[in-house]
Formats: sequence, C-alpha cells, structure tokens
Amino acid sequence: MDKDEIRNLHPAAIRKFIRKGEFSSTTEGCADGYAQANLVILPEKNAFDFLLFCQRNPKPCPILEVTEPGDYLLRDLAEGADVRTDLPRYRIYEKGECVDEVEQITNHWRDDLVAFMIGCSYSFEWALLQAGIRLRHIELEEIVSVYFTNMPCKPAGIFEGPMATSMRPIKRDQLVRAVQICSRFPAVHGAPVQVGNPAGIGVDLNKPDFGWKPEIPEDEVPVFWGCGVTPQAVAMKAKVDFMITHSPGYMFITDRLSEAFAVI
Amino acid sequence: MDKDEIRNLHPAAIRKFIRKGEFSSTTEGCADGYAQANLVILPEKNAFDFLLFCQRNPKPCPILEVTEPGDYLLRDLAEGADVRTDLPRYRIYEKGECVDEVEQITNHWRDDLVAFMIGCSYSFEWALLQAGIRLRHIELEEIVSVYFTNMPCKPAGIFEGPMATSMRPIKRDQLVRAVQICSRFPAVHGAPVQVGNPAGIGVDLNKPDFGWKPEIPEDEVPVFWGCGVTPQAVAMKAKVDFMITHSPGYMFITDRLSEAFAVI
Repeated sequence: MDKDEIRNLHPAAIRKFIRKGEFSSTTEGCADGYAQANLVILPEKNAFDFLLFCQRNPKPCPILEVTEPGDYLLRDLAEGADVRTDLPRYRIYEKGECVDEVEQITNHWRDDLVAFMIGCSYSFEWALLQAGIRLRHIELEEIVSVYFTNMPCKPAGIFEGPMATSMRPIKRDQLVRAVQICSRFPAVHGAPVQVGNPAGIGVDLNKPDFGWKPEIPEDEVPVFWGCGVTPQAVAMKAKVDFMITHSPGYMFITDRLSEAFAVI
Repeated sequence: MDKDEIRNLHPAAIRKFIRKGEFSSTTEGCADGYAQANLVILPEKNAFDFLLFCQRNPKPCPILEVTEPGDYLLRDLAEGADVRTDLPRYRIYEKGECVDEVEQITNHWRDDLVAFMIGCSYSFEWALLQAGIRLRHIELEEIVSVYFTNMPCKPAGIFEGPMATSMRPIKRDQLVRAVQICSRFPAVHGAPVQVGNPAGIGVDLNKPDFGWKPEIPEDEVPVFWGCGVTPQAVAMKAKVDFMITHSPGYMFITDRLSEAFAVI
C-alpha cells in the first residue's frame, strides 16, 4: 500500500502500519475526522507538577489522557494502543536537550514513565473546515504559523514559561462563526486566546517561531489559539532529566472522532 | 450583622466573617451568582493519583484549582484566600474515617498537603434558574437528592468507585433547554450523565443516599448530573491516611461569577 492509501484507513489500521515500521511519515491528513494527539512522556517524579501545569493552562495544554506510571497502553483514546510504538517518530530529551530522534521507544521505556496525551489543533481545524471556514495555511499547504507570546502560563512546580500560540488568518465575515465553532472543543485548545492584535501579545507576524510566514489580506484577521508546543517548550525549559515527545507533525492518531470532543 | 445580611455581601467580605469565626452556617444562598467550590485536601503522595482521577472523571470531579504542596493560599478562585480558615466547617479523616469536625484547620495543616477545589452544582443551578428552569428541591427548600449509581468511575492509582449523581426533576417541556444550559458549564459538572431512566444506572428514586426523597409528577423527568460527593467518597473508600474536606453544605465561596465558567 502506498502512503496515501494508508492515510485513508481507519486509525487502528494506520497504527498497525506505524507499529510495523511501514508508515513513518507525518500524520497530517491521516484518518480524516479522527482526533490526533501530542505526546509528552515524563518520569513519575515530574508527573504531578506537569499534570498540574496542564490543568492550570488548559488552552495550550488540554489533557486528553494520562497513563499510570509505567503503563504504556492507552485506554480511552485508543484501547490497547502502545505509546512506545504507535507513533511514527519520537524525540528523546535529556536535561532539556534533544539527544536522539527514533521511530520506536520500546528500548527507552522505563517503569517510572508517565505518558501525557494532549489535544491537537487538527481537531478544531477539521471542525472549522466542515463549517466552511477557510484556513489559508491549509489551502497553501503550509505549516501553521506558531508564535511564542509574552503571555506567561500559570506556573506549576518546576514548569513555567510563555504561552505558544498558533495563528490562523480568518476572513472577517467568518470570524464570529469561527469563534463559535472552536469554542465547542475545549479539549482541543478551544476558543481563541486573542483576536486581531498581535502586538498586544508580543507577536511580530513576520517572525513566526515555526511554520508559515503569513501574508494577511485586508479582509482577514489574525486569530491566535493556545498551541500544543507550549507544554513541550516548558518541559524543555525546566531541563527535566528525561523526556520523550512525538516529533513535530508525527502525532498519535486516536480512535475517537474529533466531533466526540465537542462539549455542546 | 445577621446571617442573612452577611449572605448578601461580596464573597471576600463573607470569607472575612468566616475567617473571624463570625459566620459558621452553610453557604447556600451566599453571594448569589458567585461560584462555590468543594474542598478535598490530601497528602502530596496521593496528589498525582487524585488529580489523575479527577482528570479522568471530569463530570463528577471538575477541578477548578489545585494548590502546590504545602501552599494553603488560592490564586485563581480568590486571590489570597486561605483554605485553612476561609470555609465555615471542615471534616478531618484518618484512614477513611471521619475523626473530627472543626471550624478551622490551621493546626492540622502540614507542609505536604495539597488542596483540590472542585466545582459545585450551585453554579449550574444558578444558570438554570436564571433561564427560568424550575428546580423543585429549591422551591421546596429541600437538599438536592444524591444517589450512588452502578456506573464505575475510571480508576486512577488507589482511587476507584462508583459515580455519585445529583438528581433534579425537570419539567419535560424544559428538558432540552436545561441540557443546553448546563452543557455550557463543564467546569461545574456540565451536561447530565443520564436522563429519564433511574433503573438503568442502578438508582431507586425512593432511596436517595442523601437529601430529598423526590415525588416526581407525570410532567417531570428525573435528570442525573455528576456529583461532587464522588471524589470524597472515592478518597474515603481508598482509606487514605489523611484527608480534610469541607463539611457538606459548608463550601468555599469563590470571587468568580458562575457565568465566568461558561465555555460558550
């Protein structure tokens, strides 16, 4: 099967290819309509602080599932999925530095590790697209623009740092509807954190930290959402002894439809 | 000032009376429109498991704020409020047994304690009443009917047990609106967990575990919401070495309007 055929399979089938090492691409466009998740794995000694950090900062760090210490199997997002093998690519961090990038982490697993699955903006982007909201970075096949802001997250234990945001230019006449739609999905970043004033949160649109450098026409407004880059950046900044994350773009594909995360 | 005058003050003013020992009644009807919160205090060694339990069971256990180990001051719900003195009454538990009931816990405080503030149904009841939904237990001045169900919570570490629910009979022609309104408030139990079939969740309406034994007329439907009794019951069942909670009805009065917790 070629990559595009695999992308159209059910999440469980795609994960089987990933587990066998037969699909090692980014997961964008995989299993349309199903939620994907960010992964952060930390030692148990950091787990309470990190969970607390996420609880205090739900816009950038919406928790979807957390495993018990030592347990590498998921229950909620995908029954029996193995966080050690079921993502296409991982990054290994020691004291805040990326020391390796690998396709499986079975050899790195330890009895004290806790896996945090964090909501991903693909889900609300899907909801926006379903509602006819235009997303230009998708039309242009660009990576979404990510900016660190001057808005501090609420600290928890050793974890602190600024909120990262993803920015999408939205047509002014679709702005209200866009806010309504993503507000239904607090589990995947939810409502925007700011609309229309980049300088007010310390952002220069011409200098994205990652992704597309946008050109915003007159009839569009820059809209900022909490971004899943935040928890990883905060954990790197805290120089935790050991951390594993997914590699950017290589997400966990859940068995749950994005729509299932809507609160209304 | 008499009790009813105090009840009409701003939350911070009421808490001042509570702190001085000059208001030691239940908090129902205090500072109308402001959210109140349940309190569970546990040692740090149980804190990750308990936070994880709440994260996995947000309907009965919606977390509003969690303190750092040893810190007895709140930041979010009421800047600088002291969880040791600012509730009117507390219960002390050892190994799952209530051993004392007191008006302050300053002498019981320890450097390893973590305070969990958990959403309270007063907030969504307020929203329902504002929308003209009739709540008969309030009209009759009864305590809301609480039932343990046969629905297991998702366990986390040592914490497990059935979900407790609060039941309110709702007029059939107001049912849809009631569901819409409380769905806006996931931080205070949110949407119902079940409508109209008590036997289906193991409930005999004639045998409430606490509160009003309801009589439900033909034009009303029993509606069940996740209940903040759940996390306390689960912690008692786990026989944690040490726990402090508010006494039933003697809640923490926050500085935040209930409406501020709406996601939409």
